[in-house]
Amino acid sequence: MMEGRSYYCGDVTEQQIGEKVVLKGWVQRRRDLGGLIFIDLRDRAGIVQIVFNTAVSEEAFKLAEKVRNEYVLEVEGKVIARSENTVNPNLKTGKIEIQADRLAIINNAKTPPFMIENETGVAEDVRLKYRYLDLRRPVMFETMKMRHAITKSIRGFLDEEGFIDVETPVLTKSTPEGARDYLVPSRVHPGEFYALPQSPQLFKQLLMISGFDRYYQIARCFRDEDLRADRQPEFTQIDIETSFMSQEDILTMTEKMIKRLMKEVKNIDIETPLPRLTYEEAVNRYGSDKPDTRFGMELVDVSEIVQNAGFKVFASAVTSGGQVKAINAKGAASKYSRKDIDALGEFAARYGAKGLAWLKAENEGLKGPIAKFFTEAEQSQLAAATNAETGDLLLFVADKKSVVADALGALRNKLGKELGLIDESKFNFLWVTDWPLLEYDEDAGRYTAAHHPFTMPFEEDIEKLETDPASVKAQAYDIVLNGYELGGGSLRIYKRDVQEKMFKALGFSKEQAQSQFGFLLDAFDYGTPPHGGIALGLDRIVMLLAGRSNLRDTIAFPKTASASCLLTNAPGAVSEAQLDELQLKLKAKK
Amino acid sequence: MMEGRSYYCGDVTEQQIGEKVVLKGWVQRRRDLGGLIFIDLRDRAGIVQIVFNTAVSEEAFKLAEKVRNEYVLEVEGKVIARSENTVNPNLKTGKIEIQADRLAIINNAKTPPFMIENETGVAEDVRLKYRYLDLRRPVMFETMKMRHAITKSIRGFLDEEGFIDVETPVLTKSTPEGARDYLVPSRVHPGEFYALPQSPQLFKQLLMISGFDRYYQIARCFRDEDLRADRQPEFTQIDIETSFMSQEDILTMTEKMIKRLMKEVKNIDIETPLPRLTYEEAVNRYGSDKPDTRFGMELVDVSEIVQNAGFKVFASAVTSGGQVKAINAKGAASKYSRKDIDALGEFAARYGAKGLAWLKAENEGLKGPIAKFFTEAEQSQLAAATNAETGDLLLFVADKKSVVADALGALRNKLGKELGLIDESKFNFLWVTDWPLLEYDEDAGRYTAAHHPFTMPFEEDIEKLETDPASVKAQAYDIVLNGYELGGGSLRIYKRDVQEKMFKALGFSKEQAQSQFGFLLDAFDYGTPPHGGIALGLDRIVMLLAGRSNLRDTIAFPKTASASCLLTNAPGAVSEAQLDELQLKLKAKK
Repeated sequence: MMEGRSYYCGDVTEQQIGEKVVLKGWVQRRRDLGGLIFIDLRDRAGIVQIVFNTAVSEEAFKLAEKVRNEYVLEVEGKVIARSENTVNPNLKTGKIEIQADRLAIINNAKTPPFMIENETGVAEDVRLKYRYLDLRRPVMFETMKMRHAITKSIRGFLDEEGFIDVETPVLTKSTPEGARDYLVPSRVHPGEFYALPQSPQLFKQLLMISGFDRYYQIARCFRDEDLRADRQPEFTQIDIETSFMSQEDILTMTEKMIKRLMKEVKNIDIETPLPRLTYEEAVNRYGSDKPDTRFGMELVDVSEIVQNAGFKVFASAVTSGGQVKAINAKGAASKYSRKDIDALGEFAARYGAKGLAWLKAENEGLKGPIAKFFTEAEQSQLAAATNAETGDLLLFVADKKSVVADALGALRNKLGKELGLIDESKFNFLWVTDWPLLEYDEDAGRYTAAHHPFTMPFEEDIEKLETDPASVKAQAYDIVLNGYELGGGSLRIYKRDVQEKMFKALGFSKEQAQSQFGFLLDAFDYGTPPHGGIALGLDRIVMLLAGRSNLRDTIAFPKTASASCLLTNAPGAVSEAQLDELQLKLKAKK
Repeated sequence: MMEGRSYYCGDVTEQQIGEKVVLKGWVQRRRDLGGLIFIDLRDRAGIVQIVFNTAVSEEAFKLAEKVRNEYVLEVEGKVIARSENTVNPNLKTGKIEIQADRLAIINNAKTPPFMIENETGVAEDVRLKYRYLDLRRPVMFETMKMRHAITKSIRGFLDEEGFIDVETPVLTKSTPEGARDYLVPSRVHPGEFYALPQSPQLFKQLLMISGFDRYYQIARCFRDEDLRADRQPEFTQIDIETSFMSQEDILTMTEKMIKRLMKEVKNIDIETPLPRLTYEEAVNRYGSDKPDTRFGMELVDVSEIVQNAGFKVFASAVTSGGQVKAINAKGAASKYSRKDIDALGEFAARYGAKGLAWLKAENEGLKGPIAKFFTEAEQSQLAAATNAETGDLLLFVADKKSVVADALGALRNKLGKELGLIDESKFNFLWVTDWPLLEYDEDAGRYTAAHHPFTMPFEEDIEKLETDPASVKAQAYDIVLNGYELGGGSLRIYKRDVQEKMFKALGFSKEQAQSQFGFLLDAFDYGTPPHGGIALGLDRIVMLLAGRSNLRDTIAFPKTASASCLLTNAPGAVSEAQLDELQLKLKAKK
């Protein structure tokens, strides 16, 4: 500690009893108790109690009378033990207090718009406008501190493993795939634009072509998307690329990194190797490519059982190539009224389900409006398949495969929460592997890259890129934690002809491919090693490890859902002169 | 090492003799020597020699015949000792070679446009276009590795000292001071713009107001300036801010950081405390606010000696409020002909000097065209003041103070290099302190901030902000290394009234101040601690520590002087649809 400060307020304990100390901090609260003034002084380390007593210093006492919440103070005094009955066991500093003999008011403060306390009922807009006060709340500081602890652990691991931290450009080139780029007009080249990177993907591949062998960067990335609650226009990615490593090598190395991270930051031992599911298995069993495996309630395929049943909705779903699946909400029959179940049906409809059928398991068998459509044999097969016992609620969706998965997957997560099935202390990491390489985009009438256009297909599938693109699997992998995608990666294409085939499958003309990615294709000509990597979303890791429910709480100065900064009022108008320099004009507002 | 690779090529030494190894790398060169093929295989760690011998493997030998430079190979073989006479003492691996019994060509390569060697005569444009090949040159990889070592050392220090690494926004608000902002149009708020930050200045101050106490970030910053050789549109700054520390505390802490950095990265012991010069002293003695102190040749003020001399140019410079100064280029008289000195005069003219007078010290006294204007007494006073001895060349500039400093300062640096006075092994760090707070901008007809508008004046100077702004000194400091400004910082204003006075001195109306910096002024109302910090230019530190002469060599993917990326061709055109979404139009080109 410098400039006369002896300790952080929160670090003074009974070790210092008898010591004369100088502390600096903010006033958490002041209480006047007839001849004594108590001030809770706060800094980033915590709170300590200061006592002002006319018997010790008349002058300090008089000054202390003027003090208000959030004033900045310098206090000098002796650390003394609190009397037995005033010890505060909830406070690290609760066994001591500071008997002040000198006080200086370093700065005043107006009454803040909200209390500086962990629990706050204030609207988020107000917190964001006064972010500098919001960040005084200990829980916010602790989250930022954990964010730093996380990057420190990751850097420590990667440094030891021989990875080189390389900065890649933020002013780069617009690419047509995926989300929208943020554009930056060039003054030197009027009419031309830089783009902010959605990821350092191409640069990290180029570094592998340069023989860097092991690269990482904790990289800011940008996406001009319509924002959802869990997206930010700028976000941070732990970006890793390696050469000459197999998928297995990369997963193993990532697991080692995660294991160390969880130990260093949370003191939790994670068992490795992590569980793995193929994409198909994840979707089949959990209705999700990022399953929350902290609870069961897996999806059960009952298509075979119901395909000939009298319930036409089920039977025709199966015969038209779809399927019927169920989840069993154990013991939930009595918790969900018909009205509640109707609400679940509306919820499922948001995911495309045309209906939500249900049965309750009672002592007498399966009951409910659709029970009558099933024979006794079918009923007992259904009960056996879903492991239904008295009191259980069975929910069914019959539709095409993707709708069944989406609707039941979402219902499963919803019920898991509502029924309290989730052990919040668990950190269930898992891999989802063997992704499809391509997705068919109905709107565009063409295939798009499921991950990105540089993902390596399985060797044996390369020839199917032309004949049966939908069936091509990628050497790609996602890491999932508690139902959230933490990150993903892949082996990359490293031969020009394969990359050209991929661009063709994505509907690029040769000219388009060359004009957009010519420099990468050219680079493939000069000795490109096999390479691959992974990128992990730092903001989301912080959110999950810090137990926050909002990405904005993991970022010091975040933007709102409309991509605004309420603190600085960015974005804002700029002068005509600035636009002139860029040779830009605003279009008349519609 | 993974996926079967035993070692990096450059790491195989005589320790491994007898071992069977698998290596992967790039072909540096191939030599066929009648029945033997030698391949130098390169990776990031270095080069190792592979020998293909039909007696060992016919198949590998046949394949090796097809190999060309920069092919990517996998080689398996035994490490054997080289015969005495083929040992290469210049190579870490020079005592061994690999007797290959298996070879796989992982990827082909076209002949690269330049050799992958440290010494390259190729034009920088070509290097930048093929940056992925340029980065294969060992010196480039080593520079990037040193860049990482530098940030690692800095992070290590700051982590230990309790600093929290906090990310601040890249999409932020345009501010009017200093260099031009890069603007980013908003799609969600048409007609509005974000700006890329020139530094995290305001955010780091807000973090101090939040009580973070110690912040750092290795932060990307942006400046849309007309680029000089040593500027990049995006650059990286080691950004530090602290609360409750004095200037002395901050300098001491920074010195500790620099000392550790130099030890860890260069194994050089730097003596601390570092030398300090006030701004005035630096300019007076070296004609520069970032003096290179690796050599002497200080500026000598001879105004008093010459003020009454017959040489009117000198006398009138002094009487009109200017000065006359000299530098003594020791022993350089015979090295500079009249023509050479004329060239020095032209050089000085670039810095505003209207003329460059000179004298040579000979056995008989000072000689030269202006010698006749000085009395014998004046001549001997001049000789004494400049410590002139036979063979020395004295150069004089007579002008207003700033021109004398600029011209002689630049000449001093030029002569220091030309005369070989500079010990390139030295790392002369120093502080320049006590900067003027404001500079008068003749064009704008107002004062501008010498550092930035948030710099704290000396307490005793605050009242002079209104009466005598030019004389106000700042609690600001620059750190200088070998004639380069490495970084600078200051204590910051932390009281609203002082900040308002500063804005007023800068010619801001109350409304302008509020609309641009209202959030900061408002924040000052809620308990702002005294704070200050420093920012160091990472690119320049890398340049100086790696002994490079070009900032572009310290950045993996830099831009040219016209802010272009020759590799990706950024910036580039964007589609009409993208502009439509931003509600922007390009102005017709003039």
